[in-house]
Amino acid sequence: MRERPVVKHPHSEHLCPWFQSAMDVLSKPWNGLIMAMLQTKGPLRFSELRAGLTAMGDRMLSERLKELEARGLVLRRVEPGPPVRVGYALTEAGQGFREVAMALSGWGKNFKPASGKPVRRRRPGKAA
Amino acid sequence: MRERPVVKHPHSEHLCPWFQSAMDVLSKPWNGLIMAMLQTKGPLRFSELRAGLTAMGDRMLSERLKELEARGLVLRRVEPGPPVRVGYALTEAGQGFREVAMALSGWGKNFKPASGKPVRRRRPGKAA
Repeated sequence: MRERPVVKHPHSEHLCPWFQSAMDVLSKPWNGLIMAMLQTKGPLRFSELRAGLTAMGDRMLSERLKELEARGLVLRRVEPGPPVRVGYALTEAGQGFREVAMALSGWGKNFKPASGKPVRRRRPGKAA
Repeated sequence: MRERPVVKHPHSEHLCPWFQSAMDVLSKPWNGLIMAMLQTKGPLRFSELRAGLTAMGDRMLSERLKELEARGLVLRRVEPGPPVRVGYALTEAGQGFREVAMALSGWGKNFKPASGKPVRRRRPGKAA
């Protein structure tokens, strides 16, 4: 009775457990974006992360960061003050997300986004 | 007024739109597992997908497949009967998920799963 199986998590007996462990992180909204922000911008403070993630609330961001920390992907660092500041950085395992992000970017350009139209980068000189 | 912005989706102005488009698919539970099932097993019938995805309901699977079809990642094929059967396969864009899955598997072995214990493949001859 010590170990309870995680029955609520999406799961398949037919797939690689490492793939599923990775999907377990990324199948929650915001986790991929938080990882990508830390990967592209380097260590960030809570407020900086919050400002970069449109429409994400403080509470949700706080929960997600705790979860990513518990998984060993994000490191929470307290910078001695005053004023005391809290920063977040990717751990070594977290930095491995770089390969995933590159594969995702390469894949994402080949299919339709939620709006049903292909994603295009804005071109300067053309009306948005 | 024709195009409504997708305000409810996780979004950041600082990140690659293709990356975000890909995350928009994978940040929903089950989508990654459905893609991986079709990628590793080839075309499958609804019941075969359902059997491979533990604890996923018919309705949820049906919704997810429609969404993946709308994005051009999954192709729904009706096999003329009798009995008429419906199969699902990855499109060309869907097959591009292979690179993502490989990157995810490589990454997922380096950090803690939800249970807090590292994922280990079962070794034959040892008690599970």
